[in-house]
Amino acid sequence: MPLSASSTRVAEPLLASGADMCRWIAELYPICRSITGDGVRETLRRLNDLVPLEIHEVPSGTPVFDWTVPREWNIRDAWVKDASGRRVIDFQHSNLHVVNYSIPVRCRMTLAELRPHLHSLPDHPSWIPYRTSYYNETWGFCLAHRDLEALRDEEYEVCIDATLQDGSLSYGEIVLEGTTAKEILISCHICHPSLCNDNLSGIAVSAALARELQAKPHRYTYRFLFIPGTIGAITWLALHQGSVRRINGGLVLAGIGDTAPLAYKKSRLGDSEIDRTVEHVLRHSGLPYLVTEFSPYGYDERQYCSPGFNLPVGRLSRSPHGQFPEYHTSADDLTFVSQESLAASLQTCRDIISVLEDNHSFVNLNANCEPQLGKRGLYRAIGGNADAGKSELAMLWTLSLSDGRHSLLDIAERSGLHFASIRDAARLLLEHGLLQQQIGEGGTESTQKT
Amino acid sequence: MPLSASSTRVAEPLLASGADMCRWIAELYPICRSITGDGVRETLRRLNDLVPLEIHEVPSGTPVFDWTVPREWNIRDAWVKDASGRRVIDFQHSNLHVVNYSIPVRCRMTLAELRPHLHSLPDHPSWIPYRTSYYNETWGFCLAHRDLEALRDEEYEVCIDATLQDGSLSYGEIVLEGTTAKEILISCHICHPSLCNDNLSGIAVSAALARELQAKPHRYTYRFLFIPGTIGAITWLALHQGSVRRINGGLVLAGIGDTAPLAYKKSRLGDSEIDRTVEHVLRHSGLPYLVTEFSPYGYDERQYCSPGFNLPVGRLSRSPHGQFPEYHTSADDLTFVSQESLAASLQTCRDIISVLEDNHSFVNLNANCEPQLGKRGLYRAIGGNADAGKSELAMLWTLSLSDGRHSLLDIAERSGLHFASIRDAARLLLEHGLLQQQIGEGGTESTQKT
Amino acid sequence: MPLSASSTRVAEPLLASGADMCRWIAELYPICRSITGDGVRETLRRLNDLVPLEIHEVPSGTPVFDWTVPREWNIRDAWVKDASGRRVIDFQHSNLHVVNYSIPVRCRMTLAELRPHLHSLPDHPSWIPYRTSYYNETWGFCLAHRDLEALRDEEYEVCIDATLQDGSLSYGEIVLEGTTAKEILISCHICHPSLCNDNLSGIAVSAALARELQAKPHRYTYRFLFIPGTIGAITWLALHQGSVRRINGGLVLAGIGDTAPLAYKKSRLGDSEIDRTVEHVLRHSGLPYLVTEFSPYGYDERQYCSPGFNLPVGRLSRSPHGQFPEYHTSADDLTFVSQESLAASLQTCRDIISVLEDNHSFVNLNANCEPQLGKRGLYRAIGGNADAGKSELAMLWTLSLSDGRHSLLDIAERSGLHFASIRDAARLLLEHGLLQQQIGEGGTESTQKT
Repeated sequence: MPLSASSTRVAEPLLASGADMCRWIAELYPICRSITGDGVRETLRRLNDLVPLEIHEVPSGTPVFDWTVPREWNIRDAWVKDASGRRVIDFQHSNLHVVNYSIPVRCRMTLAELRPHLHSLPDHPSWIPYRTSYYNETWGFCLAHRDLEALRDEEYEVCIDATLQDGSLSYGEIVLEGTTAKEILISCHICHPSLCNDNLSGIAVSAALARELQAKPHRYTYRFLFIPGTIGAITWLALHQGSVRRINGGLVLAGIGDTAPLAYKKSRLGDSEIDRTVEHVLRHSGLPYLVTEFSPYGYDERQYCSPGFNLPVGRLSRSPHGQFPEYHTSADDLTFVSQESLAASLQTCRDIISVLEDNHSFVNLNANCEPQLGKRGLYRAIGGNADAGKSELAMLWTLSLSDGRHSLLDIAERSGLHFASIRDAARLLLEHGLLQQQIGEGGTESTQKT
Repeated sequence: MPLSASSTRVAEPLLASGADMCRWIAELYPICRSITGDGVRETLRRLNDLVPLEIHEVPSGTPVFDWTVPREWNIRDAWVKDASGRRVIDFQHSNLHVVNYSIPVRCRMTLAELRPHLHSLPDHPSWIPYRTSYYNETWGFCLAHRDLEALRDEEYEVCIDATLQDGSLSYGEIVLEGTTAKEILISCHICHPSLCNDNLSGIAVSAALARELQAKPHRYTYRFLFIPGTIGAITWLALHQGSVRRINGGLVLAGIGDTAPLAYKKSRLGDSEIDRTVEHVLRHSGLPYLVTEFSPYGYDERQYCSPGFNLPVGRLSRSPHGQFPEYHTSADDLTFVSQESLAASLQTCRDIISVLEDNHSFVNLNANCEPQLGKRGLYRAIGGNADAGKSELAMLWTLSLSDGRHSLLDIAERSGLHFASIRDAARLLLEHGLLQQQIGEGGTESTQKT
Repeated sequence: MPLSASSTRVAEPLLASGADMCRWIAELYPICRSITGDGVRETLRRLNDLVPLEIHEVPSGTPVFDWTVPREWNIRDAWVKDASGRRVIDFQHSNLHVVNYSIPVRCRMTLAELRPHLHSLPDHPSWIPYRTSYYNETWGFCLAHRDLEALRDEEYEVCIDATLQDGSLSYGEIVLEGTTAKEILISCHICHPSLCNDNLSGIAVSAALARELQAKPHRYTYRFLFIPGTIGAITWLALHQGSVRRINGGLVLAGIGDTAPLAYKKSRLGDSEIDRTVEHVLRHSGLPYLVTEFSPYGYDERQYCSPGFNLPVGRLSRSPHGQFPEYHTSADDLTFVSQESLAASLQTCRDIISVLEDNHSFVNLNANCEPQLGKRGLYRAIGGNADAGKSELAMLWTLSLSDGRHSLLDIAERSGLHFASIRDAARLLLEHGLLQQQIGEGGTESTQKT
């Protein structure tokens, strides 16, 4: 069922399963992506069949802060042939064989001359490394170390049939408007060739999330970015400086398909609503998880959290960035991601969004002493029972802390109860006229679009 | 020695022992108290013999915030007779047998018809549960589960000879005026029938404390409330809205007679002077103890700490509210409280009051370098000893931190020394003209009554 | 090689070794120092050969805050002779034998009369205690307990050939001017007679540090004080009230020659730059260490941190003040200090100064997104490696937090990296025009001397 055949898209369920996402990943896996070029465009076109997105093209040479949008790279073929004419390294077998952004080359050379252009992993002799050279005009091949060692001292013919010329940088964007202009940003990178956990897992979960959200009402405006790493985020930020302050929270989704526990890396702010929300959801997930402080090394949170922007954008991942052996190698393949992990990652994103959507602040309209819950049918009829129900406790906490200075998340955190219990209690109390939504709270009413 | 015979009251010692308090509890135990009615009045009359108190009556129907003072309930007798005319459930044996606030009833019914009105504890088949129905007009009986199971399928005669009619809610109040109008509030509930730890332990310790305090000078004004739980606290707060801001700290005393370690539940503010004082006293008590954060479930601290008031009132208890099997059952009887526990609870209250009374702030009048303690006889004559005495260390700490921003309790906490050591050091330094009381500190001078 | 022969001083190396400092200590050890008198002057004269210092004399009777500069004490000889004329206690053997500041005495007395004037240590029968009586006119002898017990019940001749008369209090001062008037204070006490760890270790390390610093450029002005304990610090503070606010940080060096781990006692402020600097240096030293909160008992930090001054001055020591058996006894001798410990203490001081000197704040001039490190040669040429180098990480942290609100020490602490890594990264980024020093930061430019 090809992802590109839009007629078949009707068959995709609205709520994607782990198996659905694995299928999408498998289809996108062979495409040779880079930070520019037709691989990215093909990827975006196929995603467009899952959820309508806008594809933007930013011309080479556009200055973006300290950077410049690079020339566009495209590749048709690449190989190294031995003296007998046999392809000993072949791009057609794996797009990882070519150093990404290699300049075109066609020549004959000895092994000694070729050797500086060859990259391998002695510690993992059967894996092909992934290497790039975006801003340094050079070329190279990557290959399994055991294959490197098998090369004989003879003359080789080398060909990289690539182009590096003015064109554009492509990225995809989905904006799902809510009742407020305040935004939640979901960002994933789309610049890695045949790597699964790295780029495809984030792409799949982002696409699944966008599909769901476009089908239901929501308060926040959700902006999904499918962008080349680093230069893509820089480009987007440079072109949207006027509107980034609308971003109320965001997540970089990267490396969330493997089987390690979910790991959240906080934004540079460290205690923003998104940081506290994700930590709350993970703490109540019943699953092992990790929360780490911000550091300036990682994926595109580096740019969103750079000191000039300092946006409340964290990162949701699994295996820590750069610290697992399969990272940036051919071992990050289809077997490295699991349906269950992808499904659990997606569910966590849903839970995070659910908290963000409902995290209002209320004012207790009966703040002097407790209201009489009993006369409203909110209390057990016969008193004296040793245990007050959970929902009663959630109501008492919500009444106690709804002084306009505590959001529902604050109340959930302080009470130790799940956000959903507090939210449900607040709804019940609101229905009975015991609460009133805080005017201008959570940046909703006061900042609504006009 | 009946508590009601005022001639014998002369014999009560000024400083009550654990045995004295147990005697008081034993005398009050049989009275059938509720949130209104003659049981409460009789209890207050007997307490009046221990320490003079004012008895207030608030008419039924008085609106108090979201509540209304209920009709007054009184009961003379209640029973269930079997077909042979034998009382199989008898209020005269235990006032717990009737659901508190039951409406009057007199009828014959089958066991099947009676059954929904019977309450028992299958997990504790010999205990009678305690149940109430203050705001829901119904009736019921409580009995041991083994007695419930022995009931045969026959016709029963049911009688609850009670009245529920306009009257008033009664509470007792003692105000011991100090040199300042600032108040310390001690509150206990008086609405439970034959339950000892729950209500009588708090009543006994409060009464003992009031007896002592009326006989000696004190800085703070002490207000003792003997009130029905929940509705009593709400009623008192509703009638005293103008003056609650005088309350500088307070304690709800409830469930402090059993043998579990003392447990302090912080006020909603969490770090008020009373919170820090109680924690300091417990930490230096040498006994096991527990300090927990505020939660909106418990006794009358719920009302004092409701967000509209948010008073610095914590709760001193032993076994945690609602979390021990004897809670609200006939097993909370005279054997469940101990002389030693009551005596230790009373002593802890004395220690808390002692800290509050003396927790002043001072200014070091010789703040540039240390004063020469030696020339004032405050220092060891021959220098060079390896250990400076404790009192010398307490003087040094007091001098170091008496910058007008630290109270003596602050200094005790930061130094790790006992409050009494710091207080004694401050007195000595004051005598020697090295300290001066901070103007307007601790809300004393500046808020004195005129 | 006598310390006093200035011709030989040329031979002293600029950077002192542990052996050098032990040699200095050995030379100063026999001198009978006190809080005034010729022993102090002789000590200062010899230090002057190591590093030029100014010797100040403050006349007896000068009022210094709550104190008065005492009369000057000098001693020529002292002894107790038994009936046979034999010196059973002899000042010539150890200057610890006489209670420091004893008034002159010459008389004959029985053992019973003499006994109240004798001090010994029963728990350490072979050690002579060190005792003083600065502000209480009395006299006494200190001796080994076993010698005390050997005294027979006979008549003794007692002589203390001392003078106590108007003179002056002496202290030494070195001011090494920097490019800013802001000062770092290094203070050590010089009032103990033959005690090594107590006073001589601090003197030796201070002198070594001053020798080094005078030979190289530095930003801060360094003020070294060689002063009698307590009265010396009080005197100096009383005479310099107008200029103490220039002190940006300081260290009392005391007891840093023994073999216990280095221990830092924080200033009363607790989180000043010096406190955070010393803790950072110790944490990264690879050696065991201890950091304790301020307490008002100890050495001259008591005066610098008194509430009227509250200066950011902590104390660097090894064995905790007053808590090791050799403290204030003859066992604190030349064997109690070690070359290695002295050398490590000096190195720690150097490291602390290095951090203070370089702890600037910078502003990232390219705060919107990361700058392109690669085009400046600051980044690995071939991307995709799993591990970014340490220096790259240090650059990223420095860029991320250089928002004008974080000093380099803040960045080192938050990143977990060593200050030197962050400092080197900042220098590199500064060279490449990516950072700019924060105007008026760290109290440098804005407070420069004019």
